[in-house]
Amino acid sequence: MNVRAERLRDDLLANGEFGRVDSDEGHGRTVLTGSSADRDAREYLVERMDELGLDVRIDPVGNIAGRWTPDSADPNAAPVAAGSHLDSVPRGGIFDGPLGVYAALESVRAMQLAGVEPDRPIDVVSFTEEEGGRVGTGLLGSSVASGKRSVDEALAFEDESGTTLAEHLEAIGFRGTDRLDASDWDAWFELHIEQSTTLEDAGAPVGIVTAITGLTNCGVTFVGEANHAGGQLMDGRTDALVAAAEFVEQVEHAAREVAATESSFAVATVGEIDVEPGARNVIPGEARLSVDIRDVDTAVMDELVDRARKAVARIERERELDGNLERYRTTEPAHMNERCVRALRDASEQRELKTVELPSGGGHDTMHVGRVTDVGMLFAPSRDGISHNPLEWTDWEDCAKCTQVLADALAALSGGRSA
Amino acid sequence: MNVRAERLRDDLLANGEFGRVDSDEGHGRTVLTGSSADRDAREYLVERMDELGLDVRIDPVGNIAGRWTPDSADPNAAPVAAGSHLDSVPRGGIFDGPLGVYAALESVRAMQLAGVEPDRPIDVVSFTEEEGGRVGTGLLGSSVASGKRSVDEALAFEDESGTTLAEHLEAIGFRGTDRLDASDWDAWFELHIEQSTTLEDAGAPVGIVTAITGLTNCGVTFVGEANHAGGQLMDGRTDALVAAAEFVEQVEHAAREVAATESSFAVATVGEIDVEPGARNVIPGEARLSVDIRDVDTAVMDELVDRARKAVARIERERELDGNLERYRTTEPAHMNERCVRALRDASEQRELKTVELPSGGGHDTMHVGRVTDVGMLFAPSRDGISHNPLEWTDWEDCAKCTQVLADALAALSGGRSA
Repeated sequence: MNVRAERLRDDLLANGEFGRVDSDEGHGRTVLTGSSADRDAREYLVERMDELGLDVRIDPVGNIAGRWTPDSADPNAAPVAAGSHLDSVPRGGIFDGPLGVYAALESVRAMQLAGVEPDRPIDVVSFTEEEGGRVGTGLLGSSVASGKRSVDEALAFEDESGTTLAEHLEAIGFRGTDRLDASDWDAWFELHIEQSTTLEDAGAPVGIVTAITGLTNCGVTFVGEANHAGGQLMDGRTDALVAAAEFVEQVEHAAREVAATESSFAVATVGEIDVEPGARNVIPGEARLSVDIRDVDTAVMDELVDRARKAVARIERERELDGNLERYRTTEPAHMNERCVRALRDASEQRELKTVELPSGGGHDTMHVGRVTDVGMLFAPSRDGISHNPLEWTDWEDCAKCTQVLADALAALSGGRSA
Repeated sequence: MNVRAERLRDDLLANGEFGRVDSDEGHGRTVLTGSSADRDAREYLVERMDELGLDVRIDPVGNIAGRWTPDSADPNAAPVAAGSHLDSVPRGGIFDGPLGVYAALESVRAMQLAGVEPDRPIDVVSFTEEEGGRVGTGLLGSSVASGKRSVDEALAFEDESGTTLAEHLEAIGFRGTDRLDASDWDAWFELHIEQSTTLEDAGAPVGIVTAITGLTNCGVTFVGEANHAGGQLMDGRTDALVAAAEFVEQVEHAAREVAATESSFAVATVGEIDVEPGARNVIPGEARLSVDIRDVDTAVMDELVDRARKAVARIERERELDGNLERYRTTEPAHMNERCVRALRDASEQRELKTVELPSGGGHDTMHVGRVTDVGMLFAPSRDGISHNPLEWTDWEDCAKCTQVLADALAALSGGRSA
């Protein structure tokens, strides 16, 4: 059973026309939930599903699932499912999302053409509003499908102009009435572009995701005394920026140390800093920073927060100013299930494809699905790690290799026997 | 010969009514060059000078000088002069500037009343636009009087609405035709509030300024690579903010070290920092900082710039990113002249007043005057170091003590003998 790069390419290029934007280089698109581009993309997908004889269902938040229940399958058996999303950020690329949806479709197509006979039904899925480009909250469709968020809550989300998600879906005819519950699935797979360069650097066409890293955010403030830069000698200063600088270094130092000893995937980033009053000739009286900590292990994230907190306390004491750290958000890591990882690993080995096993630093719908069923995830190499940009690019051959692994894993977990 | 606190207070409070602003506490005023408040303040000063029989001259940039040439004095001898400025920042205080002008006036008044007979004439001076509140460039009047800037250049300066200094002075009748050349003076003194807490902390009513510190400014940039905080492991990062943080610490460290060994007045401040793109979940790709270095010794400022430059080079090398330091402005330190300092010191000792000898971290008209004649400067204690604010306050007794020292020094350098 072999997937075909040409068919996959044709679908991705056809889908890439919806919401296409001008760009000097590359191929960009803007597909916000509820736009005409979103409607066109959804209708094109439904047509392709119809062509393959899939039973298409649309749920109340617009999630789309096309189910293949061949004669060989028990229609009451829990299906295996695969997919991703069709929406994009403004001026996004053509692979982020659609690759996973059309790879799932191509997998079913290839199985059908090869006469593979699965025991279980197979669902091809597209989740609504993964990027959050319309209502500001991403992973929305999968949060409903996994029971984390109610349909009503999701439908009430509004865009900047006050239009609700319900109204947007109604407008394009995709506010459905079917039921889509991820806990009904026996297993779930998602193929996505990597959005970094690990695979490219390793020259591997296939990435097997081991976990989606957790995330914790802290807000940090140092308050000293603002003073004229010419009026206060060095000894009398409580400079909030120097305190913040020491903290930034400590955060990096702790993350490097932890990454070297406990989990090479631990990262900590200070991406924002502001000082008050922020004038060339005034000693900063206040500095505010954000800290973004990620790892596949909650205990490691906790340790990094703890070390950041201790750094604040030490700096407070040594510099005689006020420091504060508030941990205001934590998303737990999501681990892929061993049987799903094994299916992807086995398929890659049989196809003699070089793989890298790696965590995903970014969030994906699979995080939500993974709360209610077994999940696995594949990464395809993404040129220069660029995404959310018309320059986003994955070679068609790499798309096909990953899709082959996906198809083989779907076949394996659905009990598919070659006819 | 004794100055009188009451007379000085009356003048300062009367002057403080011009441009008075509402404030919950304290006593604020806004006196921008060319405003009706400025006209009123100038006319009040000229009336007071007339009362004392001074010969009032107004130069083309509105600088005012009232000359006392008693019978005892050689009218052709180089005068000794003292004064400061009457303009304020928006919502400034009543002491910053006026104290120096009215202390000079009170000094002459006290000498006249006591029958002191100087050999030289004495000039009481108010310089135009010291604060730069109108046309954005401070120390303007003294820059013209000392020959650093031409009359035409100064008059062409515009405010935000495009009105020139010439038009502003014309409008209030203070675009004069007299000549005021600081190089004609034998010596110059300025009494000013301290704008910091050295005197208050020491419990000293009189500060004798040894130098006005020089200033040098650098712009510093670090350019690494921006990347998603979840997509780039610690090892592959070139984080511009961590580089900047290290630099900020190095600047402080160098300044503390130099201040401890070479000049306790050396200071270095990073007052501004900006990172790009400045998002919580993105590793900063660029960081921009400003460095403000001050000292009474040019060589020490040079050394601090050199150490900052070396820190940039080391960070560039160790962190494999690009760093740049540009030194874009330098104002040389202005040293007070020994005979002027000695006159102030002698007067303080004779009056049994505790003094502190200290540099001025901020700029004053005396910097310009000091290029063309001998200068000395006094600081009066300023409560909590507050200035440029309605809460600015100096006790009347401290004002009077400093004015007494000024009067004694003026008498000494003008060869004044008690009658």
